[in-house]
Amino acid sequence: MSLLMENQFGELPPDKAIDTKTFLDTVSHIPAFFDCLGSKVFTIIKSDINGNITKVRAVYVTNPAKYTTLEDILVAEREAHGAEWPKVGATLALMWLKRGLRFIQILLQSLADGDRDENNPNLIRVNITKAYEQALKRYHGWIVQKIFNAALLAAPYRSNFLKALSKGEEVKEEDCLANVRQFLVNYTATIDAIYELYTNLNAELDYTV
Amino acid sequence: MSLLMENQFGELPPDKAIDTKTFLDTVSHIPAFFDCLGSKVFTIIKSDINGNITKVRAVYVTNPAKYTTLEDILVAEREAHGAEWPKVGATLALMWLKRGLRFIQILLQSLADGDRDENNPNLIRVNITKAYEQALKRYHGWIVQKIFNAALLAAPYRSNFLKALSKGEEVKEEDCLANVRQFLVNYTATIDAIYELYTNLNAELDYTV
Ligand SMILES: CCCCCCCCCCCCC/C=C/[C@@H](O)[C@H](CO[C@@H]1O[C@H](CO)[C@H](O)[C@H](OS(=O)(=O)O)[C@H]1O)NC(=O)CCCCCCCCCCC
Ligand SMILES: CCCCCCCCCCCCC/C=C/[C@@H](O)[C@H](CO[C@@H]1O[C@H](CO)[C@H](O)[C@H](OS(=O)(=O)O)[C@H]1O)NC(=O)CCCCCCCCCCC
Repeated sequence: MSLLMENQFGELPPDKAIDTKTFLDTVSHIPAFFDCLGSKVFTIIKSDINGNITKVRAVYVTNPAKYTTLEDILVAEREAHGAEWPKVGATLALMWLKRGLRFIQILLQSLADGDRDENNPNLIRVNITKAYEQALKRYHGWIVQKIFNAALLAAPYRSNFLKALSKGEEVKEEDCLANVRQFLVNYTATIDAIYELYTNLNAELDYTV
Repeated sequence: MSLLMENQFGELPPDKAIDTKTFLDTVSHIPAFFDCLGSKVFTIIKSDINGNITKVRAVYVTNPAKYTTLEDILVAEREAHGAEWPKVGATLALMWLKRGLRFIQILLQSLADGDRDENNPNLIRVNITKAYEQALKRYHGWIVQKIFNAALLAAPYRSNFLKALSKGEEVKEEDCLANVRQFLVNYTATIDAIYELYTNLNAELDYTV
């Protein structure tokens, strides 16, 4: 059974509102994804993403009825924080969280699409680099970009990565990728909706770390 | 007033036993040291060290009377955890914490000693590299070593670093270094005592991350 398939994202309602509780419960299984990358180097990233989730949840639990949807949280924080917003609270945490989620999404999509380095067919560096360039690079200064390049060397082989996604079981590559494609449907829709939310509320920032 | 001088380590008793509560209270001011390095890149390291401290404290608070000294904790965990020990609990957290503390100690000592790159007198890369080589490098695999080399580029200028150590006040370099030397006396003795403890209890590990 695939790691991803066990905790699928739900289908969005027509108005694309994201239920906070359901989102938090599902997304809390995502940091384990970084264990599939094998190296201990990635536990650092896992903690960063875990921190984002903890921060959003911490706001949610103070008033679940008020914060039913992710939009409710952003709107309430905009009211509460004045000029500090959006670089504050759950709004900031979700801003970064969605980038990490997008990184994973593009990486998986790229594998599902069969993007491949013909000279190194068992590496996934091209797929990771594509995901990094589209989801994160512009928010990273040149030193973090250099650190990414070093960390890339710790990326697992394609075969090991697919095996890890299947929880260590030997499943056929095509079966694993079919699972990935299935997972991506609602996952991608959810991330797209969060990005739309940030655009609509003018909550997106582009400072670099 | 110097950041370091405000939270000096106490003098050790003749038997070199380290009082857990005093140690935890003093060492909890150390992670702020990494803010002196200026770049956001180092907040990652700050969290790692903060995590170590939190883990030791979590064990301590379960039974302060039982865990009066750091040695008490290690001995109790050796009893409790069998073959897993010492790669477990507060023993593991303190094992890594002492390496981070040693890194800071050697860096400060090197500055106090006047080690300097004559061609780049306003850089502290030689001092950081010396500290890294002596305290941490052997516990890092080649990829983390590469990441270190990238992170080194984010190191602050010497003048800015000394200013940050003095909490942003313009103090004379010699006054700042005199503070550093004063701080190092008990700080170094405390770290030495923790290293001795690990040697005596055969609790040191040399696996790499
Ligand atoms: C001893 C030797 C070592 C020396 C030092 C080494 C230091 C290494 C540091 C490298 C950076 C690691 C990645 C983490 C980067 C993070 O800095 C960023 C911003 O992080 C955000 O910052 C905000 C404030 O600006 C809030 O604090 C957010 O927190 S809040 O919740 O409090 O609001 C926080 O997530 N997150 C990111 O860029 C997100 C990264 C997501 C996933 C990336 C996947 C990449 C996979 C790569 C595979 C090859
Ligand atoms: C998106 C793009 C980015 C892509 C990915 C980037 C990933 C970056 C990762 C780089 C590594 C950062 C440094 C952290 C290294 C840590 O891995 C190690 C071991 O950390 C220990 O591990 C144990 C288990 O083995 C326990 O979990 C300990 O935790 S426990 O408490 O739970 O027991 C934990 O501290 N700590 C260390 O090596 C300690 C480092 C201390 C200070 C170092 C100062 C260096 C200053 C350098 C100045 C130039």
